[in-house]
Amino acid sequence: MTATIATAKTAAKVSAAAAFFAKTSRAFQVHGANTEVGKTIFSTVLLARNNGDRIPTHYIKPVSTGPAAEEDLRHIKQYSPKTASECLVQYKDPVSPHLAVMRDFQTPLADSDIVAEVRRSLTAISSQAGTQNSFALVESAGGVLSPGPSGSLQADIYRPLRLPALLVGDAKLGGISATISAYESLFLRGFDVPLLLTFKEDRYRNFEFFQDFFAKKNVEVAAIPAPPPPLPSLEEDVFQMQDYYSEVSNSDVIKQANDYLTDFHKRRLSDLQSIKKRASETIWYPFSQHSLINQSTIIAIDSAYGDFFQSFEDNSSSLEPLFDASASWWTQGLGHGNPDLALTSANAAGRYGHVILANTIHEPALKLAEKLLALTANPRLSRVFYSDNGSTGVEVGIKMAFKAACARYNWAEPETDSNSTGSALRDIGVLGLKRSYHGDTIGTMDCCEPSVYNKQVNWYRERGAWLEYPVVKQVKGRWVVENLETGDIVEEFNTLQDVFSLDKRDRKTFESYKTTVLEAIKKHLDAGKKFGALLIEPVLLGAGGMMAVDPLFQNALVTAVRENAALFGAQETNGSNENDWQGLPVIFDEVFTGLFRLGHATAASLIQVHPDITVNAKLLTGGLLPLCTTMASNNIFEAFLSAEKVDGLLHGHSYTAHPVGCAVAAASLDTFQEMSDNGAWNSYKAAWDGEKTWSMWEKAFVAQVSHSGKVDGVFSLGSVLAITLKDDISTGYASNATEDFKSYLEATDTGSFSLHIRGLGNVIYIMTSQSTEPRTIGHIQSLILDYLKTN
Amino acid sequence: MTATIATAKTAAKVSAAAAFFAKTSRAFQVHGANTEVGKTIFSTVLLARNNGDRIPTHYIKPVSTGPAAEEDLRHIKQYSPKTASECLVQYKDPVSPHLAVMRDFQTPLADSDIVAEVRRSLTAISSQAGTQNSFALVESAGGVLSPGPSGSLQADIYRPLRLPALLVGDAKLGGISATISAYESLFLRGFDVPLLLTFKEDRYRNFEFFQDFFAKKNVEVAAIPAPPPPLPSLEEDVFQMQDYYSEVSNSDVIKQANDYLTDFHKRRLSDLQSIKKRASETIWYPFSQHSLINQSTIIAIDSAYGDFFQSFEDNSSSLEPLFDASASWWTQGLGHGNPDLALTSANAAGRYGHVILANTIHEPALKLAEKLLALTANPRLSRVFYSDNGSTGVEVGIKMAFKAACARYNWAEPETDSNSTGSALRDIGVLGLKRSYHGDTIGTMDCCEPSVYNKQVNWYRERGAWLEYPVVKQVKGRWVVENLETGDIVEEFNTLQDVFSLDKRDRKTFESYKTTVLEAIKKHLDAGKKFGALLIEPVLLGAGGMMAVDPLFQNALVTAVRENAALFGAQETNGSNENDWQGLPVIFDEVFTGLFRLGHATAASLIQVHPDITVNAKLLTGGLLPLCTTMASNNIFEAFLSAEKVDGLLHGHSYTAHPVGCAVAAASLDTFQEMSDNGAWNSYKAAWDGEKTWSMWEKAFVAQVSHSGKVDGVFSLGSVLAITLKDDISTGYASNATEDFKSYLEATDTGSFSLHIRGLGNVIYIMTSQSTEPRTIGHIQSLILDYLKTN
Repeated sequence: MTATIATAKTAAKVSAAAAFFAKTSRAFQVHGANTEVGKTIFSTVLLARNNGDRIPTHYIKPVSTGPAAEEDLRHIKQYSPKTASECLVQYKDPVSPHLAVMRDFQTPLADSDIVAEVRRSLTAISSQAGTQNSFALVESAGGVLSPGPSGSLQADIYRPLRLPALLVGDAKLGGISATISAYESLFLRGFDVPLLLTFKEDRYRNFEFFQDFFAKKNVEVAAIPAPPPPLPSLEEDVFQMQDYYSEVSNSDVIKQANDYLTDFHKRRLSDLQSIKKRASETIWYPFSQHSLINQSTIIAIDSAYGDFFQSFEDNSSSLEPLFDASASWWTQGLGHGNPDLALTSANAAGRYGHVILANTIHEPALKLAEKLLALTANPRLSRVFYSDNGSTGVEVGIKMAFKAACARYNWAEPETDSNSTGSALRDIGVLGLKRSYHGDTIGTMDCCEPSVYNKQVNWYRERGAWLEYPVVKQVKGRWVVENLETGDIVEEFNTLQDVFSLDKRDRKTFESYKTTVLEAIKKHLDAGKKFGALLIEPVLLGAGGMMAVDPLFQNALVTAVRENAALFGAQETNGSNENDWQGLPVIFDEVFTGLFRLGHATAASLIQVHPDITVNAKLLTGGLLPLCTTMASNNIFEAFLSAEKVDGLLHGHSYTAHPVGCAVAAASLDTFQEMSDNGAWNSYKAAWDGEKTWSMWEKAFVAQVSHSGKVDGVFSLGSVLAITLKDDISTGYASNATEDFKSYLEATDTGSFSLHIRGLGNVIYIMTSQSTEPRTIGHIQSLILDYLKTN
Repeated sequence: MTATIATAKTAAKVSAAAAFFAKTSRAFQVHGANTEVGKTIFSTVLLARNNGDRIPTHYIKPVSTGPAAEEDLRHIKQYSPKTASECLVQYKDPVSPHLAVMRDFQTPLADSDIVAEVRRSLTAISSQAGTQNSFALVESAGGVLSPGPSGSLQADIYRPLRLPALLVGDAKLGGISATISAYESLFLRGFDVPLLLTFKEDRYRNFEFFQDFFAKKNVEVAAIPAPPPPLPSLEEDVFQMQDYYSEVSNSDVIKQANDYLTDFHKRRLSDLQSIKKRASETIWYPFSQHSLINQSTIIAIDSAYGDFFQSFEDNSSSLEPLFDASASWWTQGLGHGNPDLALTSANAAGRYGHVILANTIHEPALKLAEKLLALTANPRLSRVFYSDNGSTGVEVGIKMAFKAACARYNWAEPETDSNSTGSALRDIGVLGLKRSYHGDTIGTMDCCEPSVYNKQVNWYRERGAWLEYPVVKQVKGRWVVENLETGDIVEEFNTLQDVFSLDKRDRKTFESYKTTVLEAIKKHLDAGKKFGALLIEPVLLGAGGMMAVDPLFQNALVTAVRENAALFGAQETNGSNENDWQGLPVIFDEVFTGLFRLGHATAASLIQVHPDITVNAKLLTGGLLPLCTTMASNNIFEAFLSAEKVDGLLHGHSYTAHPVGCAVAAASLDTFQEMSDNGAWNSYKAAWDGEKTWSMWEKAFVAQVSHSGKVDGVFSLGSVLAITLKDDISTGYASNATEDFKSYLEATDTGSFSLHIRGLGNVIYIMTSQSTEPRTIGHIQSLILDYLKTN
């Protein structure tokens, strides 16, 4: 295992591939709307223009096939002799690189290697230039989406660099369509396209159309005459072309275009330089104490790709990759800037925009609902209600459960007398777990115990009762179940798999859990509390401090509630169907833990319980857009049926089931399912204990962490790694115990990237997406071990 | 005015342009990845294939230039002689249609006319075929985005029909890029692309790449040999081509492709036929009584464009345009399926996906915040807080206001003892207006008076006091301000402009409003109530029944609160800055009324008040995605500053300020602003009383409605039309008074489209987007007048 980590550490490249950027070094990528549109001619013109201004120029042709590269380089050398030029990779056959690779019997160059090479070149140019201005062009091969050596599309390959794109338009008949389509392909991948270059052609006059069309898109259009037809004598032809370049590169059009690029670069730089200050004056940050925020603490994110932000560093005026270690508040599953999700979202936006979902239906909403019901594989669930985020989804779940409980237990309607200070009915609360967290709306805050989260909200009133529970963690190589109050070890296990193999767990523990739970519930009921729902986060309590609850305990809790219905109310009719709720409607808040976060479609499956209501959000859209579903059983649904409109569930947001979110969610779930089916996570499963409990973090690494003297315990499942540090001074949210660790991790470069971490009291957690590469994880593991060993 | 309405009524075409669809009539559109890729050859092959199966075939070339159309039609006639073919519009010059139009000195055909013509043809084919199968191809000119006669891009022109696209790929070098880009351009406009057709070319073998690539996109790929080179003898060439077509159209590849298209059509049809039933079994609808919903009440929305849903009609098995009269729950401003917003959303998705907004900043979030602050032009506002919908945004506003009030008035922190039943502090409530509505989360429901909306929610506890107010409406041609309790007319006016010219209004009325308000507030305070905020919907109370409040009253209310700070608490320091809040923090819920809904950037400007906190959502993203902003003054912001993390505003959703929503919102606000600057609404303004109070509904029409015996009153401002019907039996939400009117409007076809209406008690409201065409509005006005006259 140490070997594995070492290997990962020495791997020089990661898919992050920092974008090149510098104050003085202007760099652009030249893309073609088609092949044979004159990319190299326009490159030469712009390079010659800058040479004329005595600015050092560079030309990079990353990949070329056949004699084209040599010809292009020779052409540049001939007509812009001061330009330093290079071709990084060259294939013999003058066909598309993906074919040339096959025909040369070569192993195709990985996309990330090409990006790394271009970055290396550009960085060298930048440091060579120092404080002097420089101008560099990276010219791609063929059209914007021509395949590279690996078969990936060029615009996708170069996307991590996100160099501003100079698009060479097609002046021929049909060229308008090809050019605008090419522009759209670049734009939907997140590229800036400051300039369109095209030949002035008089028959079809595409350039005129471009000037009108692209003005609305803030794309500058520069049209120049095409080169004259070649002359039979090579020497004369060279003179003719020298004249052409001399004339064109000194033309007003090209001067203006070049000035525009200089301005564009300056604007981009000054935007990046000013954005932090402007944000510090304008944005009211969520969940933040603003006295701790200022322009020097704020991170400017220019773009993001895969697991990485590209953040702007003031000191170096450069863009650097920053690993998104909170998975952007636990949302990311399929990588930032995912082009497939971008296209899927555009398709739904183009097909529908948004359409109301009240007595109507559209395909994305139905497909997603059916997919979720199938994926959840819970025979109780039959209905899907849409809302916008986990908080609203939990509120919906509570409204569902309370109405069902009131109906079953025949509790009276609430008083509507405006002078009443609250009837008994209004004092119904939830039964939950301590340190739970269900969102920030007032309704969801009220169903958590008093805490630092809600004590500052002047409208908070706790509504419920919250039970203590034993937690799971790895300590010095052993998996233990610990009583949180006493600190006693309840049970010990060799593997995490053993903890989650509920059927093999000690029945005595199970029975004692039930007894404890029932006693606690009875105490609360005797004190006059009334419950309308059991509401828990299965397996892992997120914002409460990444607490892993003993799965056997959560199973026992639900079992106890269901077996003791009479405790909660005098019911006339019990649920008659085996899928009807018993005792209390059981709501699982899987906003954080569901949909493959913990390696499974549901967290419920890990504790072997079928809830009556399940809430999903966050990973639902793969990490792109807000969307939430609250699924419920038919038995719950029926509590709202009557002849009266007002008996319905009177909840609905304007953008309920917005088609874009639903389409993206359906595509994301398909992708997760395909990854699962195609064995994308099989190596992790094999390295851990099999299908049930596996993590993207290495088993031996987690064990090693658990041995550290600084560590109280560690837990890992799916993409989550949570390290609880020892902290004698303070505990909980207000703790600063993790500051030192966090600072180390953020300040230390892995050699390829830095980390962006959100702390959580004395817990450091790092969450990958569901598609993070092992070598990236390897880098982070090394960093963590380095800290724990040496600090 | 009657003339105007009549003109609008007789106009045969609207931009809706229902999509063609029928059970037996398969229709597809053939698009080219470029020009000269063989569209007509592939059309001929598919038509010949269907002729071989004895299926009637049709070929439509809507627009053609130069001799191409005749050549294409001749080619079809020659090699698929049984096909009925037609060209709808033809231009002489063989250049792009937008140029041909200019060179022929013709008025370009409107996009909607082309669509209407194609629709007419396809409908004729469909009714001619009856229960027999038929097969029709519509072949576009040039590439997918080649401009049509008006200069609009072809894929945009034909988008309302949304015919499934057959894309002819480019087999040449560079053709991979052109083909995939063309596919993306179609896909991001919401087209289905079931089939890619391409020639088998052995040098570059693009077809092999396509087969791999498009398999992942669910696009079938059919590759056939290219036709042989033409022979010198015309006769021999014809024989050669006949052989070619005979061979190719009978090949397995084309048989399979054709079968695939047949299956695709069947699947689409069966999906549309089953979607309602499946929805009725799976979806839990928002704000609905499910006993009133079943598969026959549900509307299946296949797509949407502009102001129209394309809904599937079971009886005719066809797609029909349905005007979205609720603007999809008041969200729509720039039209469904807007291609610019689709591309903008894709750009942000491709550039970022989502990135966390906690101590970070990205360009869309900052730009939108700065734009909103500028647009709102309220010197008090300086900070923008993001959340996901109006409901969460109002909760944020309340948290902000209450904390500020507690700090100013030195009210103690709430008790956190879990056994307390609520301290005095927890009983702080809002001061509001009766019939207000601020969303469906429990916190926002609690700040509305008890009503049918919240009385079913078992967790509702009203927290505040709500005042009565006079309303504005037009009755029998006169604008009146009416006392709602007594039904007395307080004041009468000639124009709506007069009502809103607050400076010219009677000072006595103003003073009497203030006196009334203060008395009511004192009464509540004396009864022990405590207020933390004044929360109102300015001008128009939406869900409460489209109540227009006398703007002078709302102005007087805010003034009274601000002038009588001592009433609300014993403050140590008054706000020292003129932009500090006084009395109570004033929150404006502009979720419904803001951002040009009522013709102005803010509704606040109509009542000449600067709130301390403003909430915006709905129109914010032009109608595409959920997003909400809560803007606040610096004085409110400062109440949260301290050295302690937990004193911050502890609210934040995972997708806070999601870049896609922010980018779309910024683009939408730019578009609204441009429309305003470019005079898009000038004709409406001129027809009404000028800049201040204008509506997209005609002034004379509104007056005419106000004279109807069925109508209690009517109100119109911006895009909103609200007609309150007389209703002696019941009032409010539960009323069925509007059912007859609604049924009439929904059942009666305007000749071009039907309406989809959401009722609201005894109010029928119709809301256009900010870009609805006058002739569409004219159709609806006629329909309304017809009902009011005759029924």
